[in-house]
Amino acid sequence: MKLTLAEPKYLKDSISIISDLVNEARFHITPNAVELVAMDPASVAMVVFKLLSSTFVEYELKDPVDIGINLSNFKQVLRRAKPSDTVTMELKNNQLVLTFKGTSVRTFSLPLIDLVEKEQRVPDLVFPLNIVTTSSILNEAIEDVDIVADSVSLQAEHGKFTINAEGDLTKAKIEIAASDDTKIAVDSTSAIKAKYSIEYLKKMIAGSKLSDNVTISFNKDYPLKMEYKVVDKVLLSFILAPRVEND
Amino acid sequence: MKLTLAEPKYLKDSISIISDLVNEARFHITPNAVELVAMDPASVAMVVFKLLSSTFVEYELKDPVDIGINLSNFKQVLRRAKPSDTVTMELKNNQLVLTFKGTSVRTFSLPLIDLVEKEQRVPDLVFPLNIVTTSSILNEAIEDVDIVADSVSLQAEHGKFTINAEGDLTKAKIEIAASDDTKIAVDSTSAIKAKYSIEYLKKMIAGSKLSDNVTISFNKDYPLKMEYKVVDKVLLSFILAPRVEND
Amino acid sequence: MKLTLAEPKYLKDSISIISDLVNEARFHITPNAVELVAMDPASVAMVVFKLLSSTFVEYELKDPVDIGINLSNFKQVLRRAKPSDTVTMELKNNQLVLTFKGTSVRTFSLPLIDLVEKEQRVPDLVFPLNIVTTSSILNEAIEDVDIVADSVSLQAEHGKFTINAEGDLTKAKIEIAASDDTKIAVDSTSAIKAKYSIEYLKKMIAGSKLSDNVTISFNKDYPLKMEYKVVDKVLLSFILAPRVEND
Repeated sequence: MKLTLAEPKYLKDSISIISDLVNEARFHITPNAVELVAMDPASVAMVVFKLLSSTFVEYELKDPVDIGINLSNFKQVLRRAKPSDTVTMELKNNQLVLTFKGTSVRTFSLPLIDLVEKEQRVPDLVFPLNIVTTSSILNEAIEDVDIVADSVSLQAEHGKFTINAEGDLTKAKIEIAASDDTKIAVDSTSAIKAKYSIEYLKKMIAGSKLSDNVTISFNKDYPLKMEYKVVDKVLLSFILAPRVEND
Repeated sequence: MKLTLAEPKYLKDSISIISDLVNEARFHITPNAVELVAMDPASVAMVVFKLLSSTFVEYELKDPVDIGINLSNFKQVLRRAKPSDTVTMELKNNQLVLTFKGTSVRTFSLPLIDLVEKEQRVPDLVFPLNIVTTSSILNEAIEDVDIVADSVSLQAEHGKFTINAEGDLTKAKIEIAASDDTKIAVDSTSAIKAKYSIEYLKKMIAGSKLSDNVTISFNKDYPLKMEYKVVDKVLLSFILAPRVEND
Repeated sequence: MKLTLAEPKYLKDSISIISDLVNEARFHITPNAVELVAMDPASVAMVVFKLLSSTFVEYELKDPVDIGINLSNFKQVLRRAKPSDTVTMELKNNQLVLTFKGTSVRTFSLPLIDLVEKEQRVPDLVFPLNIVTTSSILNEAIEDVDIVADSVSLQAEHGKFTINAEGDLTKAKIEIAASDDTKIAVDSTSAIKAKYSIEYLKKMIAGSKLSDNVTISFNKDYPLKMEYKVVDKVLLSFILAPRVEND
């Protein structure tokens, strides 16, 4: 296996975001992509990551291979790559060898780890709504509700996406109207409302480093799906379990 | 009541500064201004704040009203306002409702609180001297003495303002001469010298966020007054109890 | 004694770097330079500092003088000097008096301290190799190995300088080839390899604030020497004891 990236940004940013949710993970490397499906230790959020072979300037692979990696370790090494470095990944002696080429040649070797847990399967989810908006609008809204509470209500109806949180003291409400920036499609005549953890949403909106746009889907007492995508390059998507309302 | 600011800066910065000295406070809202007079919990410093109605683009008020607010809570909410947002304040259901309008509409509701303490009265102070200088000169001087001691001696005489501090190890002395930037008026033939807490002065010089100039008055064993003012907009003034010298 | 600098940068940056290794030190002030030779408290690293009289705009000195100064104290005071301030150093009443002249005149007095320890002598070292490279290449390499281990192997051979570290998990290897930026002179047919503490090297590479280039010399089980120099102005050099390899 020999995979080379001319710009490390997509790999670097993705691993940095994922390592905030998952400690150790199995990468599934196929002729099409470097893929990862992983659950956070509390089994509240799932991460689905795909770095397409078309992002690479060199993609040499005989057979699909699975490798287990400690992600905080991986993140720390990738952080040392400069934006202008080319990054090559190879497997040697049960190690993932990363070579950064710039003014000097720098090599980091990471041990592969055995993962006992079974492979994660991405659940088949069907949603009654789909919202596409700018990453910055969603970031602002999640940061707004973060100062007042630890869970948030999302509500979608025709032409309007509302984000609500009620803390012991302060309440916050953000109304995002459909516009050129925000497309709201709802397959329901009544508003759809669901509740999620702000702590997890905050980690997920870091996906804004990858893409200026985000797609959000959710349903009452049902998971939420959030997706950051760069065509022909990278997909980072999150599935988040609902906070079941007890009111 | 409906009060709207086209730019939240003056409110945002002032509340941020005041909340460093005072936890909870009563705002007195009159047809002329949003006002606050509050004491820090240790009764060492008083804050006098006035945001004039002319700063607002909309100022709708039937009768004067008093509202009690937790300031760190208020600061946290105002910090979410972007420089380009218009900010509207209204009273609804015993809550202060803040609406930020930008690309989205964001509403924060803060509970009003009952303040048992009596209303503060601004003391009538008469000073033998008055110094007007740039905020940056004063900031530098206070930061200089902060590295050597916890109290500072201020001394004013004809044409010269001297700031002195003596720590266990290091001593610092800053001499500011009268100039185009610094006007020094002293009603006394001899130098006037007084001592104050650097910890408090450091919180007060944050007023430099509002104005490039500051007015300072003090007297021996008597309070100090420091004032930041933007004509027709905002006034933030502090009164600080002296450190009585025991030498 | 009256020494004046038109720009405080070299003194300020040097003292900041040295104070990270040494707490108290004796400055030896001669007609040629302000000099310091000091050992870190663990006796692992030595600092040699020379600020040449030609750096000063005024250098008035009758006889050579030795003064003991607390360096963290000195650093804190120098940090208050603005880049545009002129800085004057004088001795008065057993104190080092620093005067910063800018928009205001600011004076800091530091007590001289008695140092019981004997004067340090710079050891005579002879090296089989000499590497000159850019400060940024060396900084990058030391920061690279810092994420994987606490000691590093340096290896020099004809045309190549290699930096290696092996942690419990990750390994790192940086290869720097001789180039226009990097001159490598080795007086040996075989490669020369030595091991040093990364913690100390990290403090020493702060010398990059002074100069864009650095000179490195080392030998197996022998000290390392690292030198930052600005011609006619300043010299900051470090001598670091080896980590004796137990393999």
